[in-house]
Amino acid sequence: MSFDLNAIYKERRRKVCSYLKEHNLAAVVFEDSESCRDVSIRYLTGHPGDAVLVLTAKGTATLCPWDENLAKEKAHIENIVPYTNFERTNTKAVCGILQSDGTSLGKVALSPATSHILFEKYSASLKDYEVECKEGSAHEYVSSLRAVKDEYEIACTKKAAAITDAMTVYIAENVKNGKLQNETDVALYIERELRAQGCEKTSFDTLAAGPSRSFAIHAFPGYTNGSWGTQGLSILDYGVCYEGYASDCTITIAKGPLSKEQGNLLDLVQKAADECLKLYLPGKPLHDASAMADTIFAQAGLTMPHSLGHGTGLEIHEAPYVSMRTPMDKLFMPGNIVTLEPGLYSPTLGGTRLENDVLITESGNEVLTHSKIFRI
Amino acid sequence: MSFDLNAIYKERRRKVCSYLKEHNLAAVVFEDSESCRDVSIRYLTGHPGDAVLVLTAKGTATLCPWDENLAKEKAHIENIVPYTNFERTNTKAVCGILQSDGTSLGKVALSPATSHILFEKYSASLKDYEVECKEGSAHEYVSSLRAVKDEYEIACTKKAAAITDAMTVYIAENVKNGKLQNETDVALYIERELRAQGCEKTSFDTLAAGPSRSFAIHAFPGYTNGSWGTQGLSILDYGVCYEGYASDCTITIAKGPLSKEQGNLLDLVQKAADECLKLYLPGKPLHDASAMADTIFAQAGLTMPHSLGHGTGLEIHEAPYVSMRTPMDKLFMPGNIVTLEPGLYSPTLGGTRLENDVLITESGNEVLTHSKIFRI
Repeated sequence: MSFDLNAIYKERRRKVCSYLKEHNLAAVVFEDSESCRDVSIRYLTGHPGDAVLVLTAKGTATLCPWDENLAKEKAHIENIVPYTNFERTNTKAVCGILQSDGTSLGKVALSPATSHILFEKYSASLKDYEVECKEGSAHEYVSSLRAVKDEYEIACTKKAAAITDAMTVYIAENVKNGKLQNETDVALYIERELRAQGCEKTSFDTLAAGPSRSFAIHAFPGYTNGSWGTQGLSILDYGVCYEGYASDCTITIAKGPLSKEQGNLLDLVQKAADECLKLYLPGKPLHDASAMADTIFAQAGLTMPHSLGHGTGLEIHEAPYVSMRTPMDKLFMPGNIVTLEPGLYSPTLGGTRLENDVLITESGNEVLTHSKIFRI
Repeated sequence: MSFDLNAIYKERRRKVCSYLKEHNLAAVVFEDSESCRDVSIRYLTGHPGDAVLVLTAKGTATLCPWDENLAKEKAHIENIVPYTNFERTNTKAVCGILQSDGTSLGKVALSPATSHILFEKYSASLKDYEVECKEGSAHEYVSSLRAVKDEYEIACTKKAAAITDAMTVYIAENVKNGKLQNETDVALYIERELRAQGCEKTSFDTLAAGPSRSFAIHAFPGYTNGSWGTQGLSILDYGVCYEGYASDCTITIAKGPLSKEQGNLLDLVQKAADECLKLYLPGKPLHDASAMADTIFAQAGLTMPHSLGHGTGLEIHEAPYVSMRTPMDKLFMPGNIVTLEPGLYSPTLGGTRLENDVLITESGNEVLTHSKIFRI
């Protein structure tokens, strides 16, 4: 892959600068810390995190990282001012950066994820400015940019998906021949293989749940040294991160003999996956796909206890969301990369989920991963 | 270990109930979700997370979990109402629970981590109540309870520490004999071994940074398939979680030949570890230990870019904090379990950190882990 990353990050920041000007905002503050993660800093600079980023309507962009050494290596941005310059205090960093940029007045947008306490601290320390913290402002604009992937992002995600697919094939074969015997075997195969393939990490903690634990949506703990792929229903929910971009898929291993009820769960989940995919189309309401899954399950007297899908990207869960709570006017758009993941769970039968990542295209969709329900 | 967990969780909730009555609060709301984690729910019920918990001054306790099946297995609490009963919406869940408890008036305390937006949503939907979101209230009371470990918590942490120590010995031996060759080898040995020893997971993502990457405080990514323990300075920062309780330690592997400057970094970090430990005593200000490390490094013209230590427990970073920003009146207390982790980092020399977990006792301290700087 050959992309001019400097130009890509600069162009993303230019769009935010235009947004600020259009909406009469003097500056926008992004923060990524242990207590509140925001991958938008990575989206706008390439720096992986633990930093404050201030963009102004004037076009200045300043990154204030916790780890200056790391930022110098990773960030595609000219102004890097270490956090230690501001007594490692975010309100002081933002004040200092705005003053040195000569931004002395106007509205400063904080993330809607900002805590109420921190909002009050910013309001007190940025007293020359008007501090704004609301939905539908600059941060949501960045979130909407992130929801529509560009060529670089699609290329990274396709690479993550291809690596995942190859692992899925290996796992299905090797659980059959007994080489992978328990949850840890499967999870650590993934950890090693993804790094051999140049990925940075799993895109979230691997969930490998054998028949005794697959009843939980997200098994706790994520994996144990208990058996996996043995008789009954086993779930594996995993993904990898390639240049920051996530894959996210779930396979079910259904090892017979199965009861009629277990077979029924599998059939229903497969049916929901097939039928809902037909609604993953540009211009279609996100809500419709979600309603289709609910209807299929309701006809069998069953309920899915989670949403049907979510966007993936630098974050494992990001816009758009395919849920019964998604407003009717929210539509699938070309460039969205969205999971489709129907699932059913029973304390007695076990659980099954089938999850794949779908790219919405101009003319329809392209399924990027090829997870399956494996009946073995 | 034999402990009556039902009684332990009940007693913790009873203390919170007393606090509510004393402080004229009708109820307190805890939330643990992907966007805002709060392990206090686990501390108060045993349920691992993704839930809303409402405790009232009347003494009622209601858990509203995202995953009902998991809660029925894990939570030590009588009232479990699934999230789906409230359209999977936290404000509706809290309203519904308060109403069914007959708590119809009074002050309701939200976590100080609550986002400003969510605070406004709660204020709008709980209009019959007075919504409070401030520092120094019920959540901080729980945090202060958590900072002083009880016998069960100390037993769990000691077990986590002993498992960690045994792994450290294995790692130091096997990096010397060439069995562990790269960052992935080390990290995946930890992942497999901790599960074999009955731990649930690592207490945070393992950071294994070979000589080319140890300059970063927290290497990014956490580990790669690059070499580790080869000539120069390698860092391994890792820990395990036993029944929820964390160990957190860092070893440095210093493989010669080393430059005089590299040797100097190691000596300074060892000196800081030794001298600061003498200040990890009940009744001593947390700030003093931090200042000691800074002074030792400043005398050599160097700066440590992070804090000296933090509490560990159900969370990897929790109260108390040993930092230059800690107020002078905050003291070490018997029952605190706190890391001591001086470190120095150079883009050219590499980095070194030495981290151990220290239990503050009535008479002094007990070092729970035995990490070292290994010169090989």
